[in-house]
Parts: sequence; C-alpha cells; structure tokens
Amino acid sequence: MRYYHLPQFSGVDALRLDERDVPVPGPREVLVRMRAWSLNHRDLLIARDAYGRGMKPDLVPLSDGAGEVVETGPEATRWKVGDRVTGVFLPGWLGGPVTAARLARALGGTVDGVLAEYVAFDEEAIVATPDHLDDAEAATLPCAAVTAWQCLVVQGGLGPGQRVLTLGSGGVSVFALQFASLAGAEVVATSGSDAKLERLLALGAAHGVNHARVRDWGRYVHDLTDGGVDHVIDVGGGGTLPQSIRAARTGGRVSVVGVLSPGQGIDPVPLLRKALIVQGLHVGSREAFEAMNRAIGLHRLRPLVDRSFPFSDAVAAYRHLESGRHLGKVVIVAD
Amino acid sequence: MRYYHLPQFSGVDALRLDERDVPVPGPREVLVRMRAWSLNHRDLLIARDAYGRGMKPDLVPLSDGAGEVVETGPEATRWKVGDRVTGVFLPGWLGGPVTAARLARALGGTVDGVLAEYVAFDEEAIVATPDHLDDAEAATLPCAAVTAWQCLVVQGGLGPGQRVLTLGSGGVSVFALQFASLAGAEVVATSGSDAKLERLLALGAAHGVNHARVRDWGRYVHDLTDGGVDHVIDVGGGGTLPQSIRAARTGGRVSVVGVLSPGQGIDPVPLLRKALIVQGLHVGSREAFEAMNRAIGLHRLRPLVDRSFPFSDAVAAYRHLESGRHLGKVVIVAD
Amino acid sequence: MRYYHLPQFSGVDALRLDERDVPVPGPREVLVRMRAWSLNHRDLLIARDAYGRGMKPDLVPLSDGAGEVVETGPEATRWKVGDRVTGVFLPGWLGGPVTAARLARALGGTVDGVLAEYVAFDEEAIVATPDHLDDAEAATLPCAAVTAWQCLVVQGGLGPGQRVLTLGSGGVSVFALQFASLAGAEVVATSGSDAKLERLLALGAAHGVNHARVRDWGRYVHDLTDGGVDHVIDVGGGGTLPQSIRAARTGGRVSVVGVLSPGQGIDPVPLLRKALIVQGLHVGSREAFEAMNRAIGLHRLRPLVDRSFPFSDAVAAYRHLESGRHLGKVVIVAD
Amino acid sequence: MRYYHLPQFSGVDALRLDERDVPVPGPREVLVRMRAWSLNHRDLLIARDAYGRGMKPDLVPLSDGAGEVVETGPEATRWKVGDRVTGVFLPGWLGGPVTAARLARALGGTVDGVLAEYVAFDEEAIVATPDHLDDAEAATLPCAAVTAWQCLVVQGGLGPGQRVLTLGSGGVSVFALQFASLAGAEVVATSGSDAKLERLLALGAAHGVNHARVRDWGRYVHDLTDGGVDHVIDVGGGGTLPQSIRAARTGGRVSVVGVLSPGQGIDPVPLLRKALIVQGLHVGSREAFEAMNRAIGLHRLRPLVDRSFPFSDAVAAYRHLESGRHLGKVVIVAD
Repeated sequence: MRYYHLPQFSGVDALRLDERDVPVPGPREVLVRMRAWSLNHRDLLIARDAYGRGMKPDLVPLSDGAGEVVETGPEATRWKVGDRVTGVFLPGWLGGPVTAARLARALGGTVDGVLAEYVAFDEEAIVATPDHLDDAEAATLPCAAVTAWQCLVVQGGLGPGQRVLTLGSGGVSVFALQFASLAGAEVVATSGSDAKLERLLALGAAHGVNHARVRDWGRYVHDLTDGGVDHVIDVGGGGTLPQSIRAARTGGRVSVVGVLSPGQGIDPVPLLRKALIVQGLHVGSREAFEAMNRAIGLHRLRPLVDRSFPFSDAVAAYRHLESGRHLGKVVIVAD
Repeated sequence: MRYYHLPQFSGVDALRLDERDVPVPGPREVLVRMRAWSLNHRDLLIARDAYGRGMKPDLVPLSDGAGEVVETGPEATRWKVGDRVTGVFLPGWLGGPVTAARLARALGGTVDGVLAEYVAFDEEAIVATPDHLDDAEAATLPCAAVTAWQCLVVQGGLGPGQRVLTLGSGGVSVFALQFASLAGAEVVATSGSDAKLERLLALGAAHGVNHARVRDWGRYVHDLTDGGVDHVIDVGGGGTLPQSIRAARTGGRVSVVGVLSPGQGIDPVPLLRKALIVQGLHVGSREAFEAMNRAIGLHRLRPLVDRSFPFSDAVAAYRHLESGRHLGKVVIVAD
Repeated sequence: MRYYHLPQFSGVDALRLDERDVPVPGPREVLVRMRAWSLNHRDLLIARDAYGRGMKPDLVPLSDGAGEVVETGPEATRWKVGDRVTGVFLPGWLGGPVTAARLARALGGTVDGVLAEYVAFDEEAIVATPDHLDDAEAATLPCAAVTAWQCLVVQGGLGPGQRVLTLGSGGVSVFALQFASLAGAEVVATSGSDAKLERLLALGAAHGVNHARVRDWGRYVHDLTDGGVDHVIDVGGGGTLPQSIRAARTGGRVSVVGVLSPGQGIDPVPLLRKALIVQGLHVGSREAFEAMNRAIGLHRLRPLVDRSFPFSDAVAAYRHLESGRHLGKVVIVAD
Repeated sequence: MRYYHLPQFSGVDALRLDERDVPVPGPREVLVRMRAWSLNHRDLLIARDAYGRGMKPDLVPLSDGAGEVVETGPEATRWKVGDRVTGVFLPGWLGGPVTAARLARALGGTVDGVLAEYVAFDEEAIVATPDHLDDAEAATLPCAAVTAWQCLVVQGGLGPGQRVLTLGSGGVSVFALQFASLAGAEVVATSGSDAKLERLLALGAAHGVNHARVRDWGRYVHDLTDGGVDHVIDVGGGGTLPQSIRAARTGGRVSVVGVLSPGQGIDPVPLLRKALIVQGLHVGSREAFEAMNRAIGLHRLRPLVDRSFPFSDAVAAYRHLESGRHLGKVVIVAD
C-alpha cells in the first residue's frame, strides 16, 4: 500500500509518498481501508517542526481520516467488515475529563497518523460514521469538529439563547458556528473578507463582523450583544485574545483552541475584573465524538468541505491550507 | 379595582369577584396594570384544597400574569412606567439552586396571587416581557414555561442530539417540547389523542406515541430511541412514572413536575439498575426566567395559547382547564 | 489452582471449590495472584438467584479482590511483575458518566468474578493498591468504597460543611461516613444497635441515631440538622426511602445504592415538594476508583474490616455476612 | 458617629476621620453597630487610585466589617436587635453565577464601605456571624475568605485527595489553605520566608516551598505533586502566573484572584497544551458566604488574625498591610 511519511520535519516538501505492506491488525484492532482524510493547521505546524516537542520520528502524518473496516483482529468485537468508521484523534481518551495520560497519544503527532491507504486502529479508537455523510465529510470531524463540540457543549454547556463569537472561517470556527446554531444560540462570526462573511451568515451566523474594517471588534461585539457574548471560540491566541476577552460578558468563557496569530500574552487584569474563564482545549474524547455524531446525524448536518485533493497529490492539499484561502475543511480523497 | 379571591378552598365555585382599592406600591415595589393571566393545574388543586397545607387564607389565586408598569415605589429603580412585565412565580428565588427559603413564597398559594386588575410587585420579582409576545402569551410563562426550562436547561443541561420524552399536551409538556427543539434535541411526545399528536408533531416533536393504543409506551419509547431517552419530563406522577422510568436510558434523567394521575410509588429497583436520576422540580428562579426569555426572544418562539376567557368570566377558564380538552395554555385577558 | 464457582444459583450452599489451570494472560492482560477478597450483599443475592437476570452460568463469584501481578501479557504495558493491584468492579467503565455499555460487564455477575487463586485481568481494569493498605483492606474497595465515593464526591460534589446521613453499618455506609468526614462534612449515622453507633461515632460521625428507638428517624434527623441533610446514602430501598426523603433538605439528594429492606415505592409528592434528587447508583468508573485511592492514600484512611476468613472457608464468610452481625467489611484471605 | 472617608484618592494619607449622624435604616435595612473591620490589598489600591475606574467620590472605605444589629427598618424581617452579623462584599449578589449586575455594587469601592461606627445595611446583604468567632475574626471573612471559598468550593468543586497550591501568606492564600485542608485536599504553600512557611505548615499545608530559594517553583511543585496540582490560587497575576501554570496538572485550574506583582501576560501556548482553565474570580455571593460559614462553624475554624489596630488609628492598619510583614489578616477594632 501507499503511505506518506515525514523523514524530517523540514516543511511540506519533506512529505514522502512510499510503499509498505498493508498492516496486520492486532488482536483487538481493526484494519480500515481509508477513503478520505482532512487537514488541520496543526498538520502544517508539525511538518515545519513548529508544533512542539515529542513528535514521532519518521511520522505518518494527519489525525483525521475515514474509511471502511476490511478486517477485524481475532479478539475485536465492536466492528464488522464493511462498517464505515472514522478515527479518533486521541486514541487513549475514551471518556471523562482531560488528563495528561489521555493526551499522550495523538494521531499524526506523538504517534503515527492516518495518511496511508490502510490503517490498523485499536477497535476502541474509532467511531461509526454518520450515515448521511460521505467519507470526505466524515474525515473532517476528528480534530476540528470534536474540538468545537468539546468547547461549546462539553465544557461550555451551551444552551438556547446564549451568544457565541467565532473567529474567521477555519475548520473549528465553522463547526462552532454550526453547532451553536443547532443548540439554539446566537452566533456572531468575524472574518476579514465580506465574501466569507456572506457564507458564514448563510451557515447560520446572526451577525458578521469584518475585523479588517472594525479594528476594535471586541468592543464592537460586546456592545452589539448587550454586554458581551457568553462564549468566544478563540483560534488566534495572542493576536486575538485581547479582543476576544473584550467581547466576552462578565462571567463569560473564552476557549483557546489555537494560536494562529502571534501577539502578546493574556492580560490578567480584565480576567479578574470580568471574572472570566479562559480555557485551553485540546480536541476531546471518543465519548464527545459519539455524542456529537448523534447530533450531526439527527440534524443531518453537513460539514463544510472547501476543496478535495487526490491522495497522490496530498502536498497540494497542504499548500492550499497554507494559502489561507479556504473556508471550511481541506480534504484528501482516495484515488 | 376588581379582583378574585377564595374565601374558602371548596372548589372552583368558591371563587368570588370583588372590589377593593388599587394597592399603593411600597418603597421598592411597582404597580402593574394586569392585562392577562394564565391557569395551571395547580390552580385547580388549590381551589379544591388538594394542593397541600399552608395556603394563604382568603387567597387571591393564580401565579401567572403579565401587564404594564403604571407606578413605581419611591426607592424602586429597575423599572419605569410603561414597561411591559411578567410576574415571577417564586418572588424569593432570584438565582442559585433551590432552597426551602426560596420556595417559601409562591404566588397564588402561600401568598396572594395575581388575579386582580392591579398588582403591586416587588421590583425584583418581575421580568421584562419579550417584545414579540402579547400579554396573553407572556402570561403563560411564569409557571409552566419556567418549569420546563428549569428541567431541561438548568438541571438537565440539554444539548443537541439528546432525546427527550414529553407526556401529553399540558402547559409544561408543550413548552418542554418547544425548548427541547430549540436546543437541538429529538423529542418524543405522547398523547391519548391522534389529533393532539398531530399538533405536537407540527410544534417540533420527531415522534408521537398514542399512549391509549400503546399501553407499554415506556418500553416502546425505549426501543424507538435505541436504548432510551436522555430525559423524561413526567407530569403524571405515580400513574406514569413506571413507564417514564422504562423509557429512560441508563444514566438518564426523569424530571417529576406534576402528579396529575394517581398510582403506586416509584420502584427503587429500576432506579438502581439503570442508575437513573429522578428529580422533583418546582418552577425555577428569576435568573432562569430571564435566560429563558432571552431564548424565547431570539427565536421569536410563541407559547401555545389554547383559548382565552375574559377576566369577568375567570370561572369559565378554570372549567375549561378542568375539562382536559385544552392543548397548551388556558388564558384570561383583561376586559 | 483452586477457585470457587456456582454451578447453580440455589444459595450459598451451591458454592463449589474446584481446581483448574492457572489462566494464561491474553495480549493486554495481566495475571494476578490473588491475596484477599471481600464480600458484598450483592454476592448473597447472586448466590440466591435474587439479584436479577443475566448472571453468567456457572459463575465464579465476587467482584472484589486484590493481589500481586505475577505475569504480564505480551502487549500489556501498564504494570510490571510485583505490582500490587486491586480489581475494578466494572471493567468496561474506565471514565465518564454511566451508560448501559459501561455497566454491561460486572465481575462476579454478568462475567466471572475473582474468587480464585489466580485471575487474568484486562490491564485497564485494575488499579494500583494504596501503599499503606494490606491486601485484605484493599480488597474491600472495588464495590462498596467506590459506590460511596461515586455518590458523595462524583455525583454529590460533597464539600465542607454539608450534612450527610448514612444508614446502618454495612460496607457502603461506613465508607460513606469515612469519606464524608474526610471532605469536611457533618455525618449523621443510624443503626439499630447502640454498640454499633458507638463505633460509628468513633469513626467520625457527629451524631448517632438508633432507628430502633427513634421510629420516625427521618423527621428526627431533619430537625436535628436544622432543615434536613444535604445528602442521604440510602442502602435500604423501599423500606427506608420514605424516612430518607423526610430527612433530606429541600433541594437535597438521596442516593439509592441498595434495596436491603422491602417496602412500598417512593412517593413522588415529597420529591416534588422538596425538589429532591433521588439517584440510583451503581458503583463507579476506574477514574473514580483512582481518585478515591488518591484520597485514601493521602489520609492513610483504613477501611473497616469486620472479620477475615480463609479462602478454603469462603462459605463461612458468606454465612457471616448473611447473619448481619458485621460492622464494615467481611473479608477472605489466601491460605 | 465617627467614620472615615477619602475626599481624594491620593494614598493612605488622604484618609480622614470625621463625624456625621448615625444613619437611619431604610424600610428593609438594618442598622449595625460595627465592632471590627479588616483590610484587603484592594483597600490600599483604592486609596492610591490604582484599583480602576468608577470608585464612588468621597468614599467611605473598606468592604469588610462585623458588628451587632441595633435597629431594624420597618419592613425588615430577617434580623432582630442583638443579632451578630457580618457584611456582604457585593450586596447585589445574593446567589447564582457571576454577572455584571451582581458585581456592580462593591462595598468600599463603587459604593460606600463600612469603616464607620454605624452602618445601615440592606437586610439581604449581611450574614449571621458564626457563634464561635469574635467580631475581629468575623470581619476577616467578607472579601478574602469568600474569595478563597468561591475558588475552591464553588468553582473548583474541591474534593478529598486533590492537590492545591497557594502563594504566599496573604488573606486569600491562608484561607485557601485552611479550606483546602478542611476539604481533605493536599496543600502546597509557597512563601519567601522560612518562618512564614513554618506557620503555613502548622496551619495544615503538607509542603512548603521557599520561592526565594526555589526560583523555578512552578516546575518544582509540578514534580513534587507527581504531574502537577489540580488547582492553583494565584494572587500575583503577571508576575506569578507563568510559574502557577507550570505547577498545574494537565486539565487543572488556575484561579486568578489578584495582581499583586507586575509581569508579562499569560502565554496561551501552555494553556492550550495542558488544557488548563484559568479563571478570574471576584469574591462571591451571599449564598457562598453562608455555605462557607456553615463549614467554618462546623469545624470551629479560626481565621488567622495577624494584628489588630484601634478604629482611631486605622491609618496604622493600612500602613502595616502596606509593609507586607503580615501573615493572615490585618484587623481594626472599635475603640
């Protein structure tokens, strides 16, 4: 079978497509014929050695992929051949709150990922693909969608009538917009592009704010929402957190899920004055993934796929994500 | 002004319409010209002396009403003349979890209620009426809607994809159906009438079950929902709880909000086997009311008013509720 | 090796001591040389076929046991030979809230238990034994202690200054008393024996109530605690729940963890009036067990062992438990 | 009566002692003869105009005080003459989670405080003084103790076996140490003085760390506690948060309750990597105060009073706090 690996972490150009044997599933593993994959900003950082220490040498990249079970290990009981499944980002986090042990193994990071034609998964570390989704759509879920769900539903306890601010049009932000709408919340979305704002409004946002024009967008959103939003999903980190904190209501919550833009640290003074919760989040458990899939299935929600690239041209998918021109998820499909 | 009172608790016929002076608001009170009221099953029980001990003698009945501020006490600062407001069922429960002290004063029960042309409210014990609702619609909210909200959102932490079972077509059940839909949940509704089930499906229920035909409806709902619902809003008490418990999933929640039908007690064995939470609920706080109104306002949700009666014929409203032919709320309007 | 099994469920006399090969650990299993076991009321019910359906035929009984790792499977990584470990009651419940799937496999019930000289455990389904405990003490933890912890800490969120009522002197009740004391709560304990009450006071209870003398002990405890306790750990079921509900404060919590005494069902009316939470509980997760062990280790808390019996005379241990004369846990030790 | 005020916010020297009439309680107020007061770091900042905008002009300072009811307003029902009471820091926050409205009125800040011989309190905005405390001890509670309680118990859900890190020996830190001990947690305390560490160990800390010698104390505490503490109570802000974050376990919580030391902002990267909750806290509600007092009463816990100054020399109390030589609370008593 074909698979990609990173013999060194010197950038997207380091990606190599090679051949090796199809893996044999262990006793409690299942072998999955992968049909689709998706990319996250994290995958760019890992390729560039900018994500942090502890990456597995000669890594098979990518955390996100979906496919079909083609063989089951002798002691595996949860799946049968033909089942459509999606991988779990953190195979050691089945349920309960986050711990260091549960974060230790991350696909396409500290352990090999899924950018291969066949992958042997622990039978506990995959979930059933929602029926109404094709594999490309399902492949968008493990990292970005579970992260958005973890922020809003698991940690945030989002309920009807609450107000949510999403930043930009990347994967987590678009899923957050979609989930918040499902939950009856009011979404304010930002973008630097009016065209993208139009798309975000069509996806369910109640208000769009062009942060290129409204420089003090935190204050603007605070006033627009009569004292601030209940929850901000911040993907920017230092570069956006001061404005995100400004946008939040007293007692509100700011979820820190990415550090896309550089900037200074978080000033503790407004945290204190507004009694804010600022929480770092790191994807979520299989339990969260399953609950999310139930909601996705009930509402026949469709992930927003920006563009698909063939497996043989995975590098082009990386390049497209790198360009920042996407809205929603960049996908790779089997060819 | 005209007002109703119950010189004795001998049934609906005991209701008397009389005249007395318009009350003078205390220092932190506001005087409200009432425009509409609504009835709850509790009001029938109180009139019949079947609700429990401790009712105020010569009670002015009804907990639920809405109107317009016409005068403010000298130290009242939260409202101005002309504001449209709705009363809070438990004037001593502003926020936080339930306590005995917070339940002590209940309008139209342990203290006088609102079935009068003018009522002086503590300025803390009213909420702003959502703009898109008329007073008759707003008058349906204080007891039934807040109870449904407290069950599903405050205590239940309802989220998208969860499954909720509602019983029948009374006020709490219809609000529960509407709020669960807003929150992205899947609702199963029961009724003994196919015509009512049609209405409940139109209001957002995903499934309707005629409990007159499906006698073991608990089991039926359990199987329909692939192992049971996350949350049952039980209004029947002893007569329905065995089936409600059967309908719930392992680890699920059964909210006990009424005892409309007689029956045996709750068997602790299935509670234990299924690790269920069975919780009695008693309306909710002003804080819950305000959060609910934000959701109602955002979604321009309209309460289901069954039928309106003029103030001068309040007895007819009681009689209509007693008949059980209603679907949604029975309302009284100023004449 | 020697092991016990129940070829039929006809009572304690059905227990048979037999020989079979020491099990070979599977790839992710570890083999444990068992040193001690403990009994729960459940084990009596199972032996008598009074626990419910679905028990494994020819069952190896008991859920609770502790010992030492003597061999590890080829893929097992969590333990090494010589580690002292205690089994997990529900091997499929590692963390997160209760679900039907997580309750499906219960040691000594739906799957074989631990009353054998060697047991092969899934490496995920054991926990490290606290250093300061001997194996007999550790063997008391998996069912009764985890249940008490799950009630008070995981579900109850017990904090300093709260009031807890425990009933009698069985395993769960004594652990609940001990954990509630650790957490800074005030414990009221009941017993039908003044001698046992003395012991319970010595273990940390603030008040003892002899329910044989104080028949309306629910009301008595309610008044003693200035309006009711925050949390009752009810082990009796129908026979005690009416009094337990009486003892609870408005908004309080009654955990239903056993049905030792027959009686009528739970009346929903006081549930409603007092806005109570009544929750069935069924042991807890490995995550709960580990957190509990951290507390036990920090405080060097010692479980209360009533009496020990040798492995070869396990039947005598069953008989002693059956007599009801114990206070704390009945234990079996290797011989 | 005598009272202090700040005609300008130019520092401690601006404090003026003057005379005015004893206030007449309003209809729902009670008049309290103050017996003791305590100081917080906030009071120094307010005197220096360094606390923020919106301070009431010509402010009566101090949030914390206790005394005896000497008169009740005509509509006040909660208290009687002779009751010993302590004031609530935020008179508008009776219960429930924090909101901007509930923070709006803060004694000795946005509204007049309590440094006067008589104070008229809203009858809802005081709590009963625990019987075993004298007024000087009770006066230490409203700000520092409620803040520590809110962090650990209300927001943190502290339970037995958890690990807590406190910084230094100011009021909040010492109360946090005491409450965490009550709750069965393991406390690590830091100080720059070995003598103070001795005192903190005597108060219940399990470990003391001299941050003057152990510069990388965050890392040290992380390793000492086998992967980090569950909860840090950070009083330093920018100057200590990087180390506090280092000390926390993955998934842990850092409560930000003060900004005593300058420094850079909070780096979002470790927040993300460790999935931390960083929460600003601002005292707490009356409901929290009452629950805390129940715990204090049950355990007969005594606040740590560093030193008392007479009312007529309140400036000396400010100066002593300013010196940083205190351990525990600085108190003023009636003379």
